[in-house]
Amino acid sequence: MNCHLSHAISHNQPPVILQQDQVNALLPLLDVKNELTAMFRSLGQSHAVQPPQTLTLLPQDAGDFITYSGAMAEQEVFGAKLSPYLITETAPVITAWTSLMSQRTGQPLLWCDSALLTTERTAGTTALAVDYLAKAKSSELAIIGSGAIALAHLRHVKNLRQWQSIRVYSPSLANDEKRRAAFTAIDERVVFCTSSESCIVGADVLMLCTSSGTPVVTNEQLSPGVLVTSISTNVANAHEVSPSLLLNADVYCDYKATTPDSAGEMVLAATELSWNKEEIKGDLPDLVNANCPLPDFSKAVFFRSIGLGLEDIAMAYGLWKLLQNQQQ
Amino acid sequence: MNCHLSHAISHNQPPVILQQDQVNALLPLLDVKNELTAMFRSLGQSHAVQPPQTLTLLPQDAGDFITYSGAMAEQEVFGAKLSPYLITETAPVITAWTSLMSQRTGQPLLWCDSALLTTERTAGTTALAVDYLAKAKSSELAIIGSGAIALAHLRHVKNLRQWQSIRVYSPSLANDEKRRAAFTAIDERVVFCTSSESCIVGADVLMLCTSSGTPVVTNEQLSPGVLVTSISTNVANAHEVSPSLLLNADVYCDYKATTPDSAGEMVLAATELSWNKEEIKGDLPDLVNANCPLPDFSKAVFFRSIGLGLEDIAMAYGLWKLLQNQQQ
Repeated sequence: MNCHLSHAISHNQPPVILQQDQVNALLPLLDVKNELTAMFRSLGQSHAVQPPQTLTLLPQDAGDFITYSGAMAEQEVFGAKLSPYLITETAPVITAWTSLMSQRTGQPLLWCDSALLTTERTAGTTALAVDYLAKAKSSELAIIGSGAIALAHLRHVKNLRQWQSIRVYSPSLANDEKRRAAFTAIDERVVFCTSSESCIVGADVLMLCTSSGTPVVTNEQLSPGVLVTSISTNVANAHEVSPSLLLNADVYCDYKATTPDSAGEMVLAATELSWNKEEIKGDLPDLVNANCPLPDFSKAVFFRSIGLGLEDIAMAYGLWKLLQNQQQ
Repeated sequence: MNCHLSHAISHNQPPVILQQDQVNALLPLLDVKNELTAMFRSLGQSHAVQPPQTLTLLPQDAGDFITYSGAMAEQEVFGAKLSPYLITETAPVITAWTSLMSQRTGQPLLWCDSALLTTERTAGTTALAVDYLAKAKSSELAIIGSGAIALAHLRHVKNLRQWQSIRVYSPSLANDEKRRAAFTAIDERVVFCTSSESCIVGADVLMLCTSSGTPVVTNEQLSPGVLVTSISTNVANAHEVSPSLLLNADVYCDYKATTPDSAGEMVLAATELSWNKEEIKGDLPDLVNANCPLPDFSKAVFFRSIGLGLEDIAMAYGLWKLLQNQQQ
């Protein structure tokens, strides 16, 4: 993201609404990696701010909504994503919409459906970490999980290393041919494992893409040098790895200022195992700005993200730039 | 606001954007008093929630933005107003936009310019308090201030009592014929005072509509039974009355859960004068639900508002209902 380019883009047009099908049509044009890299670079240079996310409980136990906000100075935008979790008689309704505004004019720029964008920025953030933290010669990729997040993770990392083996495991895949086809449509190298153990063993990069609240991998399964990525869920103290892994791994995260107080295994390691968040070796703002040591691969490497409002703002800004360029 | 009526309104249409001129055109149709009354009734019955407002400082001292959010269960809506204060080489840019979403579908309903709406809801909230707290036989109205907020206050209270005298004072009015004409266009009974003292003396209701950070009226100028309303500004510890007034008045506010920790004179009275916020006799949720004593007029009555996100949500919801009814 070039500062002068952003200044050339007009902040003076009427705001745009993008519904899900319109976002879907624009997604292939969105350079997620570039947008996230620019944002994390700004954040590391204090050209962006990330306020804490806020949770609001809806009246009468109807659910909640989370507000994710952020501001980027060079791009001259700020905004907020509102994401409700609405309890219904059947499945809960979960949506997300991001409003993007101009820091130059104070006027609105874009209101966009962010359901797909949230998946993209989550996977794109993991991929950014993989690119910085995985051994250059990583050849074996393992993915635990089979949801939309897992598919997006595969899409974002498949070209980052010269994978010789891509293994996927989820208990639900055995009887879901359609979902298996979705994986092989992204990368025909994918093979499906019949057990978690056979998926994990020998992996150079292990991406945990589950909504599990308890560990899906044991410390003993992790060899020195392996990179484990985890996203987990918003559930209190949810964790995909054992809190004790943090005592024996090089630990990184998406944003040091917020992640350690939210990520379940970090909270548990701090309260029960005397782990100190100061031991985190770096976060994405550090990595993008070369402000922290890289792993020496003498231990396992753990990367944890919880997701930032700034990632949502960066995605909305990326879409808005695409619309501006289409109009020129 | 009738619960069953709201259920009859569709939450399934594409979201609408209303820019300032469109909001302006709809404003005469908006029943501010009714919308605010319904919202405060819900809030008092725990059918609405009001999270704290959040202030985010923009990078590189460019200003800030405040997020005002809220949710209303009966109306099945939630949302947030984003209001930036942007520092420029000349005057600061201040805007406000509210995004309204459906609690039923999780989908967006309306994104509207809220600059005018903020003025309306602020004046409408004061007017609601005047209707509950001013003596029934109030006949003398005094207004200090001459901005858009003062004009809106006059508009919202002019028919609430049988005013025999409406006096306005602001130092700037002496040389501003156009602004004086704006007042008399709203109510031809308005007379302009040449001093603050002559405006205040004898008033039954005194509405302070200034952005002053220090008192614009002394305690000695206030007779027993007079109602003083104050909105002040967001500046730290700004106050239009002396903190000591709170020791000698019946004190009310817009929302007990948040106002005492933000309103300058309340913060100062608590820290310097041992005033206790438990002494507040009631707030608008209490008044609308008849859950607090009314003043006995043996002392001055003081009403302080700081403004709630729910007021913004209520205004956006009112506009959205108007649009729905126009389409039917």
